[in-house]
Amino acid sequence: MTVALDDIKAAAEALRGRAVDTPCLPSPRLSERAGCALTFKFENFQLTSSFKDRGACVKLLSLDADQRRRGVVAMSAGNHAQGVAHHAARLGIPATIVMPRLTPAVKVEKTRQLGARVELEGETLEDSAAHARMLEQRDDLTFIHPYDDPQIIAGQGTIGLEMLQAAPDLEVLVVPIGGGGLMAGVATAAKALKPEIRMIGVQAAANPAMYRRRLGLPDVAPGPTIAEGIAVKVPGRLTTPIIDALVEDILLVEEIALEDAILQLLEIERTVIEGAGAAGLAAVLSYTERFAGRRVGVVLCGGNIDLRLLSAVILRGLVRSRRLIRLRIGIPDVPGSLAKVAAMIGEAGGNIVEVDHQRAFSPLSVKATEIDVIIETRSAAHAGEIVTRLKAAGFEAASLDGTRFGS
Amino acid sequence: MTVALDDIKAAAEALRGRAVDTPCLPSPRLSERAGCALTFKFENFQLTSSFKDRGACVKLLSLDADQRRRGVVAMSAGNHAQGVAHHAARLGIPATIVMPRLTPAVKVEKTRQLGARVELEGETLEDSAAHARMLEQRDDLTFIHPYDDPQIIAGQGTIGLEMLQAAPDLEVLVVPIGGGGLMAGVATAAKALKPEIRMIGVQAAANPAMYRRRLGLPDVAPGPTIAEGIAVKVPGRLTTPIIDALVEDILLVEEIALEDAILQLLEIERTVIEGAGAAGLAAVLSYTERFAGRRVGVVLCGGNIDLRLLSAVILRGLVRSRRLIRLRIGIPDVPGSLAKVAAMIGEAGGNIVEVDHQRAFSPLSVKATEIDVIIETRSAAHAGEIVTRLKAAGFEAASLDGTRFGS
Repeated sequence: MTVALDDIKAAAEALRGRAVDTPCLPSPRLSERAGCALTFKFENFQLTSSFKDRGACVKLLSLDADQRRRGVVAMSAGNHAQGVAHHAARLGIPATIVMPRLTPAVKVEKTRQLGARVELEGETLEDSAAHARMLEQRDDLTFIHPYDDPQIIAGQGTIGLEMLQAAPDLEVLVVPIGGGGLMAGVATAAKALKPEIRMIGVQAAANPAMYRRRLGLPDVAPGPTIAEGIAVKVPGRLTTPIIDALVEDILLVEEIALEDAILQLLEIERTVIEGAGAAGLAAVLSYTERFAGRRVGVVLCGGNIDLRLLSAVILRGLVRSRRLIRLRIGIPDVPGSLAKVAAMIGEAGGNIVEVDHQRAFSPLSVKATEIDVIIETRSAAHAGEIVTRLKAAGFEAASLDGTRFGS
Repeated sequence: MTVALDDIKAAAEALRGRAVDTPCLPSPRLSERAGCALTFKFENFQLTSSFKDRGACVKLLSLDADQRRRGVVAMSAGNHAQGVAHHAARLGIPATIVMPRLTPAVKVEKTRQLGARVELEGETLEDSAAHARMLEQRDDLTFIHPYDDPQIIAGQGTIGLEMLQAAPDLEVLVVPIGGGGLMAGVATAAKALKPEIRMIGVQAAANPAMYRRRLGLPDVAPGPTIAEGIAVKVPGRLTTPIIDALVEDILLVEEIALEDAILQLLEIERTVIEGAGAAGLAAVLSYTERFAGRRVGVVLCGGNIDLRLLSAVILRGLVRSRRLIRLRIGIPDVPGSLAKVAAMIGEAGGNIVEVDHQRAFSPLSVKATEIDVIIETRSAAHAGEIVTRLKAAGFEAASLDGTRFGS
């Protein structure tokens, strides 16, 4: 193998005072739901809110004075960009980050603020990578690969050391896989320290590159996913053989499971985790029988989720759990009708947050009208009660969310 | 004083393995914004997501076998309820929690799930407290006060021990004050270990009970606040003299500052903190000159914020920072007008999330119409650019948020 335990120990030494030894804590609350003893590693506590800080720092420290003076170049629209930008700035190394032209400006801005020069070049990640490789040649820069590099793998592997130090009795580690740098590093460390530990990888069902490669299936075009951080088209050249040798299984998780995991981490664990970072918990909750009764360590590998997206995830979750419902209610088109319906919903404990009137498009008699009401409820059962009460009073109430209430 | 360092050390001993020694970490990112070196104590990592776990556990452990058998009663609609319920269940002590009748069902449910019997009694907190005191007498239960109890104060004080152990060079501690149990405990510990440390309390401007008491001002009716956890009408009898003796100053923070602090903790620190929990950061950011250049420890004392409220805080924050704007745009009422405006906004990098047409209520000619558009932008400057482009093309665009763009 290209990376050994000693490399990872050396990386840990190099990172002391430069990366955060992030909290590694049991989660009694989510353990109960999952039916296994969960321990989380909170990599959202890194300075750029993801594990990418570690590999980037170790790689940059490995450069000689001449390489440092000439500078580095990387291609990334995400966490790798921030990790490289931050540590290059701290070490006084000039850094250029190439991003695709359509990268959201927020990400560009963040990377610039961390001290890097950003070049927007190329329509796709491949185009951008080609441009970065061109700069590497032309300006004699060092290219910092996001995962296919022994130093990067060793850096990410320090997470494995820290987890087994904090919780030596872990039996299974669950680690998201994109290019595979994180998993290759953590698996190398964990299997060396504790050969009987089981390593389980996770990919989004929409982006199953390493999973398919492992099964000998042909590559497929990746789909859109909330787990952008692990949406990698081609698994790493260095990381794949390590993962083949050390990882017992790779599980796929659906988009709704990813959203749900983000939400549970937010609501129960009180922490902000991005899609890719929540993939491990999504896997544990999607395949409970695989983990039942075991002591399971899950790497929450990053927290960089846009606030607007987070707000959408919250609202969609409330809709899924019927804590936010949308009803279409037929009422007589006379003064006082709305008041009557609103009073009924209020008495049932529902909180109306939005009302909309339909007239022209209503299929009802011109003497009737329809209102669309968005209501906050306490639970799915409570939502059902509200509808039952409306129906008992003679109002026709239909869910606009494709769900049915009661009988 | 009723509580000494030794009591707090004994409490820490009692809590070992029963409460979480929560992460205490520097925040380089928010330090830069605040202009001082910030260290956060993450009490949202407690099992019931607030510091109340500590005092409740210490108090319950202090009961003798007979008291434990008879059971305990507490009055709280919030974090104290959950702390008592959780630790009573773990210790096998029957617990009754009295809550006001209109307490949101979510809170009732959570407390029941933790194993307590909940009685909904009384219109106000005072009525509920009276009922709890009645149960104490009638059923020979032990009343667990939320703050006015030496055991509770000693329990909360363990936070001070942990902070000064994790970061001995802190110069100032900023602690939210409601009844004062948290501050009384932390101040007792910190001043005993490091007499030169400065203790700064924080209250919501809407609920300045201890602040006014200290200045000799008469009590005022409390107002609504997002910092519900520190919305206490009457400061503690035991806690007030401790705070008078040990706390240098109490600062008041406005509601917007509280919302902003929640948002910064979410967006930059990637952690979920409730209003009361964010009061410390709100104070540091509202009174930067007071803390400039100092090493400041802030207790993030709880994370129990409702997800719907959190989503509202996010959206309001996006509106405040103009990352979400609402424009009213006058357009000719002919086919293709909307397409033209939408294309222009899209080319300027704005993302339209909602469109609404105004016809009947428009003050414009019947040949024109108005659309209300909600747009996601990258920043206030970007929002300004979008409006400028619309105006340059001859469209009348006015902000519906009471703000003006450009000149």
